[in-house]
Amino acid sequence: MLAEKLRKIYKNSGTDALFIECDFIRRYLTGFYSTDGYVILDESGCKFVADPRYFEAAEKQLRGTAVEVIEGSYALALELLQGKKTVGVPYPFTDVASYERLGKDFELVDCMPVLREAMIYKSEEELSLIQRACDIAEDGFLELLPALKEGMTESEAAALLEYNMRRHGASGTSFETICAFGPHGSVPHYETGNAKLKFGDAVLIDFGCKVEGYCSDITRTFLFGDDGKHGEFKEAYEAVLAAHDLVRETLVAGMTGREGDAIARDHLKKFGLEKYFTHSLGHGIGLQIHEYPNLSPRSEQKIENGMVFSDEPGVYIAGVLGIRIEDSMYMKGGRTHSFMKKTEKKLLVL
Amino acid sequence: MLAEKLRKIYKNSGTDALFIECDFIRRYLTGFYSTDGYVILDESGCKFVADPRYFEAAEKQLRGTAVEVIEGSYALALELLQGKKTVGVPYPFTDVASYERLGKDFELVDCMPVLREAMIYKSEEELSLIQRACDIAEDGFLELLPALKEGMTESEAAALLEYNMRRHGASGTSFETICAFGPHGSVPHYETGNAKLKFGDAVLIDFGCKVEGYCSDITRTFLFGDDGKHGEFKEAYEAVLAAHDLVRETLVAGMTGREGDAIARDHLKKFGLEKYFTHSLGHGIGLQIHEYPNLSPRSEQKIENGMVFSDEPGVYIAGVLGIRIEDSMYMKGGRTHSFMKKTEKKLLVL
Repeated sequence: MLAEKLRKIYKNSGTDALFIECDFIRRYLTGFYSTDGYVILDESGCKFVADPRYFEAAEKQLRGTAVEVIEGSYALALELLQGKKTVGVPYPFTDVASYERLGKDFELVDCMPVLREAMIYKSEEELSLIQRACDIAEDGFLELLPALKEGMTESEAAALLEYNMRRHGASGTSFETICAFGPHGSVPHYETGNAKLKFGDAVLIDFGCKVEGYCSDITRTFLFGDDGKHGEFKEAYEAVLAAHDLVRETLVAGMTGREGDAIARDHLKKFGLEKYFTHSLGHGIGLQIHEYPNLSPRSEQKIENGMVFSDEPGVYIAGVLGIRIEDSMYMKGGRTHSFMKKTEKKLLVL
Repeated sequence: MLAEKLRKIYKNSGTDALFIECDFIRRYLTGFYSTDGYVILDESGCKFVADPRYFEAAEKQLRGTAVEVIEGSYALALELLQGKKTVGVPYPFTDVASYERLGKDFELVDCMPVLREAMIYKSEEELSLIQRACDIAEDGFLELLPALKEGMTESEAAALLEYNMRRHGASGTSFETICAFGPHGSVPHYETGNAKLKFGDAVLIDFGCKVEGYCSDITRTFLFGDDGKHGEFKEAYEAVLAAHDLVRETLVAGMTGREGDAIARDHLKKFGLEKYFTHSLGHGIGLQIHEYPNLSPRSEQKIENGMVFSDEPGVYIAGVLGIRIEDSMYMKGGRTHSFMKKTEKKLLVL
């Protein structure tokens, strides 16, 4: 499987060799995680050049796979490229310094389109890692709910949620947890702070974790007690939830990202809420928290079986309210399925 | 202060404008944290182009500072560059796709050397944020110790430590916590796993957290009970600790990174341990966990007042033992000082 995946990527690149310095792509190609190292993929196969810090572990983990581990540094990796003419590097993850250094000796080509084309279709193994990351996120959230108390800060709630996920086996968060109390929820990318939870607050938590590098992404919005002032909030919540559900129910394989986005946007329009939906519906999820496909008004990419993406409509009225409901989803058998099976999405009032 | 810092960077860049897309540099220049946005620094001042997700918060936080916040996207940021000839972008943090896009309209120059030259000297405010990140790391570690129990996994211990740091006010970890039990410590960049703690294990924990973006970095190695088989370990520990201390005591302003590294390396040589010291002594610490100065056998950079760096000698004998002792340090008044004041470094046996 690995050998076949690597051969296909090499062949499709149309280059003499791929040269990879970027963490998550190295992990994708080899299955081994390291913060440094070089992967060279050419017609002879796949070589991973690891420094002494990683060599021992890499050699052990990758023995018997299609990846040959070699102890060495950048200089050795460059030596292995000698004689090649065209070399593929992933432009969006190659810095200019590195590009100029390699560009002296080789004709460089962007291999990211080929990598993206491969990475956008998740294998069963990748799907099951994302499923675990989603299960853990939900378990962590369910354990957070009974622990929420008046006076607790956003940071404390986020810390406890992250701890729960770690205890369940996550290696870390997939992005900085957003935990927003009260009107802070109206800032879509709010930086979690020290606001204290009080009765009647709406709570928006956008979070996720990693399992062997693979990410989960989920948002829940709920009420910490009902102070009777949430009429507008409840109406908006129903509209956002219906938009979210409608995507899962009606987004089928072959539709474009634009069409997927429009399912939610058009629904919110019926309630005059589309002007408060200030971001796109979703993004791909994998080894990166934001990857392809995009589900946005400008995305003509088709959503196909094997793709993983978020479904996260939202409504934000500055200083008043913020609602976002998000599951990580996958396309299988032509239909959209959620990875999230443990947490309720109908409005929760604690 | 901010205005002066920005003016100096602009002036030293020798360009018509700096154009910054990179997270941590944006934060350094504006003081505002966001995952997206563009900073333009030119003779008229500093503009931060923020999208609707961040505009509200940025506008509020930066009102009255030297940074003007403008709502817009990439297109608007590009418009603000019109009429410029040379534009500075930080090459190591600019991807090739972006470089090629900007390169069509402007003559690009690497402004990273100028930014590095500014960022390597920490202001009092930056030092106090790093101090807080270090205090929190130590507090988290001290609370972890009594909670360590036989049968606990490396991941569980790491999770609890991270939770402790979050509760004390960290926004997150500064890198993935390394928690290695027993012989796992001999892998310098071990990936925390599911090994269970048992009596007599050596424990190596390399960790740190962030406070307003600024990082701490610390490693402690200790024994979870003494099973009487740690003779070699204890000897090596004493040598590593003496090497660590010697750096703090004798590294003075004006010495190079190479000379700093040699203090520890030469000391380990006396015990025949230098061949097991397989990485360099230290790295700069700031908004990034690895920045300048380097304290390595090849670094000719001078260590000056205001610089922050790690002092982390180590000894790794594959499959047998791993010891690393690390503090985050700063140079002040010509001498090296540790940020760490709460945790013991003499060998701890729990």
